[in-house]
Amino acid sequence: MVRTLASSASPLPDFTQITDKVQRGNYAQLNDKDVVHFEQLLGKNHVLTEDLDAYNICFQKRIRGNSKLVLKPGSTDEVAAILRHCNERRLAVVPQGGNTGLVGGSVPICDEIVLSLQRLNKVLSVDEVTGIAIVEAGCILENFDQRARDVGLTVPLDLGAKASCHIGGNVSTNAGGVRVVRYGNLHGSVLGVEAVLASGQVLDLMSNFKKDNTGYHMKHLFIGSEGTLGVVTKLSMLCPHASKSVNVAFIGLNSFDDVLKTFVSAKRNLGEILSSCELIDHLAFDNALDHYKFLKSPITGYPFYMLIETSGSNATHDEEKINQFISDGMERGEIIDGTVTGDPGKVQEIWKIREMVPLALIEKSFCFKYDISLPLRDFYGIVDVLRERCGPLATIVCGYGHLGDSNLHLNVSCEHFNEDIYKRVEPFVYEYTSQLKGSISAEHGIGFLKKNYLHYSKNPIAIDWMRDMKKMFDPNAILNPYKMLN
Amino acid sequence: MVRTLASSASPLPDFTQITDKVQRGNYAQLNDKDVVHFEQLLGKNHVLTEDLDAYNICFQKRIRGNSKLVLKPGSTDEVAAILRHCNERRLAVVPQGGNTGLVGGSVPICDEIVLSLQRLNKVLSVDEVTGIAIVEAGCILENFDQRARDVGLTVPLDLGAKASCHIGGNVSTNAGGVRVVRYGNLHGSVLGVEAVLASGQVLDLMSNFKKDNTGYHMKHLFIGSEGTLGVVTKLSMLCPHASKSVNVAFIGLNSFDDVLKTFVSAKRNLGEILSSCELIDHLAFDNALDHYKFLKSPITGYPFYMLIETSGSNATHDEEKINQFISDGMERGEIIDGTVTGDPGKVQEIWKIREMVPLALIEKSFCFKYDISLPLRDFYGIVDVLRERCGPLATIVCGYGHLGDSNLHLNVSCEHFNEDIYKRVEPFVYEYTSQLKGSISAEHGIGFLKKNYLHYSKNPIAIDWMRDMKKMFDPNAILNPYKMLN
Repeated sequence: MVRTLASSASPLPDFTQITDKVQRGNYAQLNDKDVVHFEQLLGKNHVLTEDLDAYNICFQKRIRGNSKLVLKPGSTDEVAAILRHCNERRLAVVPQGGNTGLVGGSVPICDEIVLSLQRLNKVLSVDEVTGIAIVEAGCILENFDQRARDVGLTVPLDLGAKASCHIGGNVSTNAGGVRVVRYGNLHGSVLGVEAVLASGQVLDLMSNFKKDNTGYHMKHLFIGSEGTLGVVTKLSMLCPHASKSVNVAFIGLNSFDDVLKTFVSAKRNLGEILSSCELIDHLAFDNALDHYKFLKSPITGYPFYMLIETSGSNATHDEEKINQFISDGMERGEIIDGTVTGDPGKVQEIWKIREMVPLALIEKSFCFKYDISLPLRDFYGIVDVLRERCGPLATIVCGYGHLGDSNLHLNVSCEHFNEDIYKRVEPFVYEYTSQLKGSISAEHGIGFLKKNYLHYSKNPIAIDWMRDMKKMFDPNAILNPYKMLN
Repeated sequence: MVRTLASSASPLPDFTQITDKVQRGNYAQLNDKDVVHFEQLLGKNHVLTEDLDAYNICFQKRIRGNSKLVLKPGSTDEVAAILRHCNERRLAVVPQGGNTGLVGGSVPICDEIVLSLQRLNKVLSVDEVTGIAIVEAGCILENFDQRARDVGLTVPLDLGAKASCHIGGNVSTNAGGVRVVRYGNLHGSVLGVEAVLASGQVLDLMSNFKKDNTGYHMKHLFIGSEGTLGVVTKLSMLCPHASKSVNVAFIGLNSFDDVLKTFVSAKRNLGEILSSCELIDHLAFDNALDHYKFLKSPITGYPFYMLIETSGSNATHDEEKINQFISDGMERGEIIDGTVTGDPGKVQEIWKIREMVPLALIEKSFCFKYDISLPLRDFYGIVDVLRERCGPLATIVCGYGHLGDSNLHLNVSCEHFNEDIYKRVEPFVYEYTSQLKGSISAEHGIGFLKKNYLHYSKNPIAIDWMRDMKKMFDPNAILNPYKMLN
């Protein structure tokens, strides 16, 4: 049984190997000689054997591994030397960035060695003319973005965990976030990667160009493979110019049909300046405002809310466009009420509502969480269906997320984990998504928690090819075992 | 010896197997039984054994294969059945789209069977709400774009060969073109592919979502692998809304330094509406105007010309932005003269100049052509260096291309192929590019013509992994032999 999300307020979870009855792989046991070897390689300061909870337990306190060793290499060569040793010794390894993942992809499940990238944290270069930045994998997203902003650029990726997630982890997860509607996903923005393979071989696929058709585009295998094919140590990214003008509209709507119409209107009329299009339903919204009294919403009392952001190069033009868009929508009766602001403080206040929605849902209750892509026409139907299926067993069944990218965050809240609800929602949610040819993991990845559901979005032939790929890159399966493929 | 480009006016080339001393692979010989088998499979009308020049000879009349058989399957299943047979019989196959490639990637080199995708030409669906289109590989780019435009969308790819190239060929080449600066490359726009592998297995990696993190992102292996890993038969693509307003500026500048400053200014001030940023030097420009008397240029007499296009959702705003951008540039003395137009006829007239530049260069002379990515600061230096190296031996040494994507088309013209010039430009151009960590093939790919130069842009470890990848997907090496890897 997989519990999708334990409350963040809960005490330490039990060891996942025990709760989830995980059969340990046929790996060697770590011994003192190994530890001495690593101490000689990295220096004693960078080899941890005590107080490892922060490395063993996932962000959601859902997964708890039992690693006895955390290694903190300071260079690609050190990563390579570590993996070479582990591969020869058949020691399992879990690469770890900021440990903010939501599917248990970055923590050990049994006793894997944790390979933390946190010392590889430098922004190596940012070119303000071309917009190309070269950065080490362990750099925190927010720090990377700050460096880009110093020269008028921005990292084309923004998500709630930005203050602690690492850019290498983002790339390994193919993280999405709130600006994909504008800048696309990381397969477009990442120009090159350097990855260390299980054997310790360094695969240099760095490139500084949007156009580079020299051979197979293998870098993409490391974008979104969650550290199971190699450890990303460095990457180059195309950073757009930071927008001079940012406006946010927060609007209330009466029906999902109006939400869809408003989205199409935004695409047509805001077009090139549209940089976010988020949806929050009233249950998610009310719950956030209930929990966090510091949140200030300019409007209340609507079935649906949308947060629409524009980013552009001309404040006057942008304001004119977004005001026109709102007044057209109100005239057509699609938008009932709303506010538009370009004031940075108020923009932040509105974003805060959106950001606190997921946190409010796990604050005091247990929550089954799903991160799915669905065809837009069927985007919200599953929330209604699930609400009916769960009835009074659930306290909240709500939906919010990145409407502009067809990405719904579907949540079912209850006081404690409840077997009865669990059976009503799983595998129903995955079957429903699969029937609509949706994606059972839009942006969070597969990790440990979703590997048994992969077949709902990928056919057996594709999964077989993934296994072949895994065997080719990591024949001893030492890299991030118990993840992605079962 | 590799002749980079024969004149398009030249007679039929000799067989490439002979001129280039290609050792035929250890493949079976096609026999009558095979032909009968294919006739039964596809129907006689779709099995050609005569008049095959158009399939055997590349667009540039540089490569001539000696295939005796062209197959035109009408479905993915037929493609699969063909490959299954060829794989069992060890018959080599070259997949072919519109045959507009520039590196000899889509024509046979020896006697490979030509697998033409031209009957798989349907646009299967276009969703105007989500912007997602599903299309068969053999659909001509222009036809696909027209279908998208019918519902207010556009295909995010535009290039000179659009009237004959196939979208499947574009994807297999990871074709670039003139709008990459706005919409990014195909790794971002292509959401899913269906590919038939050498074994005849159909690998369905179709997806209709920008966010879909369910397993390894293997579709990218088929984007840009030039039909050597599988035959793309279908794909889904994210199509942006067609812009309501398109403006083009055509400007004259005195130095490459001013060109760079103007580009940075365009990125900052046109920002989100910038949709093309092209450079033409005066030699390329004068040559085009000399050859094609129908070309009309609003300005003449400058060392450098730039074509800057904007596409946006509000004509008034866009005009204001581009006019301001031009007048600021003129005030700073970076732009000397120029014209801006939003009139569709005039926009087309200006684009015509840019489009005829490459054709004028091969109209009456032999031309060594290079398609490279270089750091912007070093973008034009190589043209000057090469001009000096060639001296009076060359008639024209010029540069033009997609400045906005760091992609230079470097051309050395002479009356006939000239061994002396050849030795002065190759491998010099590749070495020079390699030293600057540039790409020796920005958008044209590797194909047959550049496979001996791949190592200038990819290290031996990466090339070894490409070979492993090839062996895994096509163990008998029947798919597009003599291409990509040597």
